[in-house]
Amino acid sequence: MIVPPPALLADLAGLLGPAGYSDDPAVLAPWLTDWRGRYHGTTAALLSPASTNQVAAVVRLANAYRVPLVAQGGNSSTVGGATPPADGSALLLSLRRMARPPVIDTGDAAATVDAGVILSDLHDAAAAHGLRFPLSLAARGSATIGGLVSTNAGGIQVLRFGTMRALVLGLEAVLPDGTIFHGLSSLRKDNRGYDLRQLLTGAEGTLGIVTAATLRLVPAIGSRSVAWVALPDPQSALRLLRRLDGALGDAVESFELIPATGLDLVLHHIPATRSPVAPTAPWHVLIEATAPHGAPEPADTLAAALQSALEDGLILDATIAASEAHAEALWKLRETLPEAERLDGFAVKHDIAVPVSAMPDFIVDTTSAIEATYNGARVLAFGHLGDGNVHFNVRAPAGRDSAAWSAAHGPAVSRDVHDRVMAVGGTISAEHGIGQAKLAEFARTADPVRLATLRAIKTALDPLNLFNPGKLVPLAPQRTGP
Amino acid sequence: MIVPPPALLADLAGLLGPAGYSDDPAVLAPWLTDWRGRYHGTTAALLSPASTNQVAAVVRLANAYRVPLVAQGGNSSTVGGATPPADGSALLLSLRRMARPPVIDTGDAAATVDAGVILSDLHDAAAAHGLRFPLSLAARGSATIGGLVSTNAGGIQVLRFGTMRALVLGLEAVLPDGTIFHGLSSLRKDNRGYDLRQLLTGAEGTLGIVTAATLRLVPAIGSRSVAWVALPDPQSALRLLRRLDGALGDAVESFELIPATGLDLVLHHIPATRSPVAPTAPWHVLIEATAPHGAPEPADTLAAALQSALEDGLILDATIAASEAHAEALWKLRETLPEAERLDGFAVKHDIAVPVSAMPDFIVDTTSAIEATYNGARVLAFGHLGDGNVHFNVRAPAGRDSAAWSAAHGPAVSRDVHDRVMAVGGTISAEHGIGQAKLAEFARTADPVRLATLRAIKTALDPLNLFNPGKLVPLAPQRTGP
Repeated sequence: MIVPPPALLADLAGLLGPAGYSDDPAVLAPWLTDWRGRYHGTTAALLSPASTNQVAAVVRLANAYRVPLVAQGGNSSTVGGATPPADGSALLLSLRRMARPPVIDTGDAAATVDAGVILSDLHDAAAAHGLRFPLSLAARGSATIGGLVSTNAGGIQVLRFGTMRALVLGLEAVLPDGTIFHGLSSLRKDNRGYDLRQLLTGAEGTLGIVTAATLRLVPAIGSRSVAWVALPDPQSALRLLRRLDGALGDAVESFELIPATGLDLVLHHIPATRSPVAPTAPWHVLIEATAPHGAPEPADTLAAALQSALEDGLILDATIAASEAHAEALWKLRETLPEAERLDGFAVKHDIAVPVSAMPDFIVDTTSAIEATYNGARVLAFGHLGDGNVHFNVRAPAGRDSAAWSAAHGPAVSRDVHDRVMAVGGTISAEHGIGQAKLAEFARTADPVRLATLRAIKTALDPLNLFNPGKLVPLAPQRTGP
Repeated sequence: MIVPPPALLADLAGLLGPAGYSDDPAVLAPWLTDWRGRYHGTTAALLSPASTNQVAAVVRLANAYRVPLVAQGGNSSTVGGATPPADGSALLLSLRRMARPPVIDTGDAAATVDAGVILSDLHDAAAAHGLRFPLSLAARGSATIGGLVSTNAGGIQVLRFGTMRALVLGLEAVLPDGTIFHGLSSLRKDNRGYDLRQLLTGAEGTLGIVTAATLRLVPAIGSRSVAWVALPDPQSALRLLRRLDGALGDAVESFELIPATGLDLVLHHIPATRSPVAPTAPWHVLIEATAPHGAPEPADTLAAALQSALEDGLILDATIAASEAHAEALWKLRETLPEAERLDGFAVKHDIAVPVSAMPDFIVDTTSAIEATYNGARVLAFGHLGDGNVHFNVRAPAGRDSAAWSAAHGPAVSRDVHDRVMAVGGTISAEHGIGQAKLAEFARTADPVRLATLRAIKTALDPLNLFNPGKLVPLAPQRTGP
């Protein structure tokens, strides 16, 4: 155990006061383990500054004492990105206290938001002004804006609006030397040198601690239409998406692929769920199309496109939600899938993307290969087909102990999946980031020029390696053995 | 004069052969002066590699001899960004020979394009596949993809599709150490560390030499509707834009503001132009709305919205192009405006942006202030109102020698305009970049934390300062006096 100097802790306690400083193990406990329960950190104190100036003061103190800081928002990272190291060497810096109500600028369709604001609160604040923030994901009730920016979060609307990177207009961040980058702005165009907003977005707190952001808003949804479609295979799903692109254009916001095995897990584990179509189809997609206020509802166009796809034999069955409650019920089947999978046991998870057009064949071919190689392993591939991003999860053969099987075979399965992803020009992290979970695989599979450039940038901006060390950037060669 | 070592020149001549190496003054001449004729460089040789590997070999040689390189595409920078230094210390590296036909991937709606491909050739290549590359600007017949990426070009469709930054899916670049960053990819999501594509986009060749890009394509236009509207003031223009947002949504691709004085310049200097409306209105906007194939034409909706704006007294007059030829004639009035202004004499130019909602008042107030302070100076503010970006150009009082007046008063006028821009949270470079023209003003007006971070990144990736030195990044404090 490495414990930060008592003098530093005393300085921090004095700076932040009782509301901003705690070394109570009961207070710290929920924040020391990632939400999947795979990583366990320790720390001497939880720091909860109330303002950007306090964050800067904390950073300057940490800098003076050479003590690392791990920034944390809602602690919903799936790659251990916000869990402090196990050796106790770092302090945990929560941004959750910095959560003033978002400032909504209707004239410029922008929101200025503190890092600690929870995503669903931003949704509500925008809606109160007839606007919306078009990024959403299952953790919206706990994920914070600072974390969503720092991980370049994706979610279920990327098809239309892009990831967080496309929605960040401005940023405020504290840099590793304790200076404050004042980049809050709703400017749509700004060509003054390297784009520091983009550099800090997705940097996982390794280059700066995001304290606030100016985010793009879009008009509120006037109407939406949600459909559930049964199909024979992923190839048909992509063909359907291309048809809808033609008929509905930008109106298609979500296009989520779900295999029958995934739907079965949900129906089995999640109360009050039922299959929206005859449950024998091997593949399903959930579609959401929207229209702004004043524009025609998308339901008729969507229904006509699905009807024609049915007549052409492209799809097997379809239902369009007849009410908002029905739409919510359909979405519940998709959104509870990760939870249902977790309730069913361990899975070896992969958050991968390949070029959109290559994804259907990739799913089919890689599923066959993995299930054959690992003798009965069960693949569950689901997600954002329209972005070329699926969550390719591999579960133990039926009847086997999932934890033991995952521990024994997980590393080899992951290397196999990742090699297949890289072979078709894909990425081993589509939306969850690298954190600590994927650091070794990132180091193993990445272009050395890319790694060298990441290291050069990290070293230039954080020469003492004090910001979230051990995450994202493989500073030294990693061991890749099992 | 600083001349690179003869041994280096001999090595480069041998590497590149006669087609790739020239020291003939007649060959070099067109590329040593920027297109506005304000900056004049000298160089010992023009290097024109034919492949990425040749670019890398050139960089390694330049690195070994510590000789700077200035990358150049179509030489259409408006800020002297691609003009080599006057002292002859650098070599000019043209990417123009690297111009194989673009590879269009219809399945992923992406184009892979060599740096030297001219923008209009990419437009044609995409169109041949029923797609389009949604970025265009007046220099499309000479600007190259490498330059457009390196300057994060904007243009007339940013309102809908964003700047080049939003269209770059992947990049290939040679880094200052001569290694090649292999980042060509059509992936829609990739969360593996710092976004090097975004860092290189808009870096003006100071961090890497972009050799190819994978660019996003969108469906071809099925129909378009172009309108010319006369209005009383910029505030009315913004109100009109908001109405059209509601009625037409994403269909509005261009919304260009033009003052009567600008239209007058065009009518006076450009042959075969005529005013589309009664020419007494003080302000005008050019609007383009589009629809994809299969979708209803936007003309009726646009006409209805303009009719209602006319009845409400928001606008003074409007005409909708009745034919493609008519639409081209309206666009010609906008696109020849910079040329007409140049034919009229020198202007002190500012490519500025402020928050969109602040732009109408900014134009009115700053025009009054500048015309009053500089006793009869004439402001011409035009451009992309929907992006909050106008070209705020100041011309000499009537009857004065424009060159002499600009030389005498230009620096003070620019500082005044820029101070007003900064006071409302704007930028002194919306789309043209910094280059050498704005380096001193950037240094004077920028947040010191931002400047320090830019310097740290530049120094980390290009420690010898060999890539386009003296552009974009104020490495040392600048003199700001006249």
